[in-house]
Amino acid sequence: METYPIEKRFPPLGHKRWVIAEGFIPTTSHGPEPEMTSHEAACVLNVSDEEAHLEIWIFYSDREPVGPYRISIGPRRTKHIRFNALTDPAPIPHGTDYSSVIESDVPIVVQHTRLDSRQAENALISTLAFADTESVM
Amino acid sequence: METYPIEKRFPPLGHKRWVIAEGFIPTTSHGPEPEMTSHEAACVLNVSDEEAHLEIWIFYSDREPVGPYRISIGPRRTKHIRFNALTDPAPIPHGTDYSSVIESDVPIVVQHTRLDSRQAENALISTLAFADTESVM
Amino acid sequence: METYPIEKRFPPLGHKRWVIAEGFIPTTSHGPEPEMTSHEAACVLNVSDEEAHLEIWIFYSDREPVGPYRISIGPRRTKHIRFNALTDPAPIPHGTDYSSVIESDVPIVVQHTRLDSRQAENALISTLAFADTESVM
Amino acid sequence: METYPIEKRFPPLGHKRWVIAEGFIPTTSHGPEPEMTSHEAACVLNVSDEEAHLEIWIFYSDREPVGPYRISIGPRRTKHIRFNALTDPAPIPHGTDYSSVIESDVPIVVQHTRLDSRQAENALISTLAFADTESVM
Repeated sequence: METYPIEKRFPPLGHKRWVIAEGFIPTTSHGPEPEMTSHEAACVLNVSDEEAHLEIWIFYSDREPVGPYRISIGPRRTKHIRFNALTDPAPIPHGTDYSSVIESDVPIVVQHTRLDSRQAENALISTLAFADTESVM
Repeated sequence: METYPIEKRFPPLGHKRWVIAEGFIPTTSHGPEPEMTSHEAACVLNVSDEEAHLEIWIFYSDREPVGPYRISIGPRRTKHIRFNALTDPAPIPHGTDYSSVIESDVPIVVQHTRLDSRQAENALISTLAFADTESVM
Repeated sequence: METYPIEKRFPPLGHKRWVIAEGFIPTTSHGPEPEMTSHEAACVLNVSDEEAHLEIWIFYSDREPVGPYRISIGPRRTKHIRFNALTDPAPIPHGTDYSSVIESDVPIVVQHTRLDSRQAENALISTLAFADTESVM
Repeated sequence: METYPIEKRFPPLGHKRWVIAEGFIPTTSHGPEPEMTSHEAACVLNVSDEEAHLEIWIFYSDREPVGPYRISIGPRRTKHIRFNALTDPAPIPHGTDYSSVIESDVPIVVQHTRLDSRQAENALISTLAFADTESVM
């Protein structure tokens, strides 16, 4: 597929602080890897013409939050961030409840998805993350 | 079923810019086609008395956005737009992460749905898309 | 379980107009009825001390909207409205895309759920409906 | 995994009143307990530096609301509250439609999740709860 030159510019779209209150990386998987590996992702869109610099904080039920995990998303790009892949400052333990706060220096949109393949057939969830509308600018 | 004449008029309902941050068309399917074909859809409602003219832009992780895909929705009509069916200016590759921005000249409401039948049993997700409330009018 | 007298009063909670853009009643089911019958529901909460009078309009892709379907919800009550059960002015055809607009004379909260048991294992979706925040009062 | 001292302080994030309009605890389960027990949960994040004191009210279709169920969440902590585990003032009956209102003395974020393992393969749903934005402060 070709890419298309775009003269179009998108006005700011989204917010700078998002929350995914539900987090849980299943401990086991069924099916071909990596497509069918149980995972949890934050799908992020940056429509702006600047690189977005994200800081993710992971909150737990029984210890202090861990972060920031730093991730960049290019201008006019999407990134599906797998929480399984976050390692610095520390990997997220599997089989543990957590929540995440995602901060960005430019407005972004965040959607939360989980593929759960603990049993033979996969289950999927997806929901819009919570946007802190107070922090738009 | 009969249709019903309605004298009722609906006030503007929805917004003019929406985002679906999560996009992924599975590469394989199980079950009878086309009902059980893996697909991803934007379900759009136009309650107004004017035709809605939509422009959809697809954002990728590694190339420039592609669009606009142009779609019209009649007055007082719903349309379930399958991303698999978008071909002009270019089909969306399967097995690839993407996001979409949907712009309309009249307020609409957008909900995102995916049927994933990669494994023998289907999985469904659905979530309200993100509305850019700044752009209501 | 006993019921509890409550002296507590809830302030107005919710909105008066909601949209579920995605609607589809599967044509077939697997599993014990009625719990496992494929169905689509609008789950509605009325925390107020007045009865809520709802009017539901069903929008289609190829014909005029049908309605109103009239439903009441008592004060401080929830109701899970199955779209399958709506018959007056006309039942909703199965296997057909539709959207719904739900209007109420008191603020309510609406969540959308679908159980899809077309294949042997059931799939569930649920998402908050779209609230028309312009119409709060 | 080590915990990390954080000098970072999070500004208020979320709202003080939330609604989950859809509630249903399945009556049966398949798979290993407790991970695969059918359950319904409210995932709550408290990013503040104060303990959050929650009061949950359960609404039914045919009787008065029951509550408050009192739960605390520590500063900078998440808690995944299983509705199955609520017992005081009364357990929630299984196989019954309900809705919940969650009130907190500090802003929180709430996401709703259900694991349904009535059939052999599990189904998952998750959606952001409804935030009463009128009550932010």
